[in-house]
Amino acid sequence: MSKAMEMHEKWRGKIEISVRAGVTTPEELAIAYTPGVAEPCLEIEKNPHRSFDLTRRWNTVAVVTDGTAVLGLGDIGPEAAMPVMEGKCALFKAFGGVDAIPLCIRSKDSEEIARTVALLAGSFGGINLEDIAAPRCFEIEARLKELCDIPIFHDDQHGTAVVTLAGLIGALRFTGKDKHTAKVLISGAGAAGCAIAELLFADGFEDITIANSRGLITRDGQYSSDRLNALAQKTNKRNVAGGLAEGMVGVDVFIGVSAPGIVTADMVKSMAENAIVFACANPTPEIMPDIAKTAGAAVVATGRSDFANQINNVAAFPGIFRGALDARAKDITQDMNIAAAYAIASLVKDEELCADYVIPSSLDMRVGKVVAEAVEKAWKKVDSN
Amino acid sequence: MSKAMEMHEKWRGKIEISVRAGVTTPEELAIAYTPGVAEPCLEIEKNPHRSFDLTRRWNTVAVVTDGTAVLGLGDIGPEAAMPVMEGKCALFKAFGGVDAIPLCIRSKDSEEIARTVALLAGSFGGINLEDIAAPRCFEIEARLKELCDIPIFHDDQHGTAVVTLAGLIGALRFTGKDKHTAKVLISGAGAAGCAIAELLFADGFEDITIANSRGLITRDGQYSSDRLNALAQKTNKRNVAGGLAEGMVGVDVFIGVSAPGIVTADMVKSMAENAIVFACANPTPEIMPDIAKTAGAAVVATGRSDFANQINNVAAFPGIFRGALDARAKDITQDMNIAAAYAIASLVKDEELCADYVIPSSLDMRVGKVVAEAVEKAWKKVDSN
Repeated sequence: MSKAMEMHEKWRGKIEISVRAGVTTPEELAIAYTPGVAEPCLEIEKNPHRSFDLTRRWNTVAVVTDGTAVLGLGDIGPEAAMPVMEGKCALFKAFGGVDAIPLCIRSKDSEEIARTVALLAGSFGGINLEDIAAPRCFEIEARLKELCDIPIFHDDQHGTAVVTLAGLIGALRFTGKDKHTAKVLISGAGAAGCAIAELLFADGFEDITIANSRGLITRDGQYSSDRLNALAQKTNKRNVAGGLAEGMVGVDVFIGVSAPGIVTADMVKSMAENAIVFACANPTPEIMPDIAKTAGAAVVATGRSDFANQINNVAAFPGIFRGALDARAKDITQDMNIAAAYAIASLVKDEELCADYVIPSSLDMRVGKVVAEAVEKAWKKVDSN
Repeated sequence: MSKAMEMHEKWRGKIEISVRAGVTTPEELAIAYTPGVAEPCLEIEKNPHRSFDLTRRWNTVAVVTDGTAVLGLGDIGPEAAMPVMEGKCALFKAFGGVDAIPLCIRSKDSEEIARTVALLAGSFGGINLEDIAAPRCFEIEARLKELCDIPIFHDDQHGTAVVTLAGLIGALRFTGKDKHTAKVLISGAGAAGCAIAELLFADGFEDITIANSRGLITRDGQYSSDRLNALAQKTNKRNVAGGLAEGMVGVDVFIGVSAPGIVTADMVKSMAENAIVFACANPTPEIMPDIAKTAGAAVVATGRSDFANQINNVAAFPGIFRGALDARAKDITQDMNIAAAYAIASLVKDEELCADYVIPSSLDMRVGKVVAEAVEKAWKKVDSN
């Protein structure tokens, strides 16, 4: 048996409930339960928002999946997704102090999933969507944002986008490139690719092209989702035709959230000088770091912990929710995501910045705190407008 | 500010999530999260029942309410119900070692509530329904028993019935009465009253009459629920007509789950010798213990902790779920409920049994353990048939 299986057999669950209030003497029960509990109940009945003071709602997030796009394993079902969701909840607590509760839903119907989560929204301070296949993940997120007045965050999209932007900020700084002029190619037009493109545009990037497995997205193309059709009108401003190879010629930045091994050394060689290569397909990157470096890349990042510059969502979601909960935000906006990315990047000091350190370690315990502060501040700016 | 409010402000939630697995070093993450977590996921995909070994499902119960019948406060809404649900979850852990998660649902539609819970059933080992108004609580329970293969338990019905039966076992033992011949009057035809009548019949009681606010339930009456109509055919075998006063004449046992102060001293005086009075309306009983005793009651029990013989569900639900989870029961049957009641009653030794001690304290830490063992054993008997 592998070490991972052995430990999962031993843990029998990676999270559990702890009790914060005494409930074992008559005196304690009279305060924490009946009859004392009636008073906070009536207080919340008068003003439901008081549930954020008098219950754990202020610190509680649901981690929701339908089990259809779990890791690289695909549609393995809600029960089988639970070990990942429990792990995610453990990370929420360890890195953000957030109480996260895993909910695996037995449905593949967007409206039914959204409705289920919306009916539970009064128990939570936020909803983190996880490992739900596209396009359902977009539909559910959009619907929940309509139905709920608490933050809805699909980590596979926005968490990935935030950490990618954080890494890019460091990489541009290291290579002396500028976001307004840098040419960016994103390989992958799924949930993560679209979210990255949108966040980069929101931050001021201007020249972004997207490639999917059929080739480059162009303004006259017709695509399967409204979202990609909208992005097609903003991307590929140089109107390049062809596939990945054509798209990479002369670009400053390659961002892969696509498939293992699809980028060749020649493609990297065709990029601009001081090329930045983020090969984030997991576990096997679009191109291995040593090959990309030999082909001339100035900075290489991957999704893996065994290479330098890991792009790992752990740097984002715990702090983002910590900040959103602390701010009692009703939403997580692009401004908050951008603030999170710059906060992560800010931890790399000038004297530390180098090709192998453009982004702090995702396990750096400072990250959650600075992200939370930046996100809370960004919400307050939104909220005061 | 009251002590209860002060403490709820201070706690900011009576439960929280704790982490059981290391997730803060790369080595730990590789085991608890990616890539190691893929193996338990795939194992559960092959055999979903393995989720009971490899995740917390084996020990996790959802505490579900719609907030419509909370304590004596009525329909205060899902957010306002949360302090009670958190308290319940704290009791589950303290007395049964069960991880319980509070879910307050924003719906008053039985089918919608049942569907919502059923879609989440893969995340839990059991469902405890709580503080849902009748008749919705019956409909939801029945529907969930059809939809789910994990135990469904409505504590306001079955927990109350189990502890009432446990107290009655002790009271009959003290007064030398026999369940087969004892005449029982139940005041209250709601969720608790019906569940008590059904459990007593299941245990072998033969002479039970039910009174509601309009009078005694009779065989030729027509009632609002199928359940009460079914009970009407089994109860009131002496065919007594009239109201509470008429119903109490000559009975051995009065069980009140109804309204404050509706029983008079004269009514108790009209009961059989060595009368047993369980006046469980909360917080004000149907009759105060001192008045009942002066009127001749041999044993008096209430729902309150400040009088002898408290009938409190805390004696039942933590141990019942502990036993059901340990047995991996698919249901909680009447045989399991009866076994739980006798297990509670068994803790009162012959030399301890007296008018003021017919049932152990609900805070007696031995209770959960003996209940769990009895319930597990009872399920194994069901399961082997």
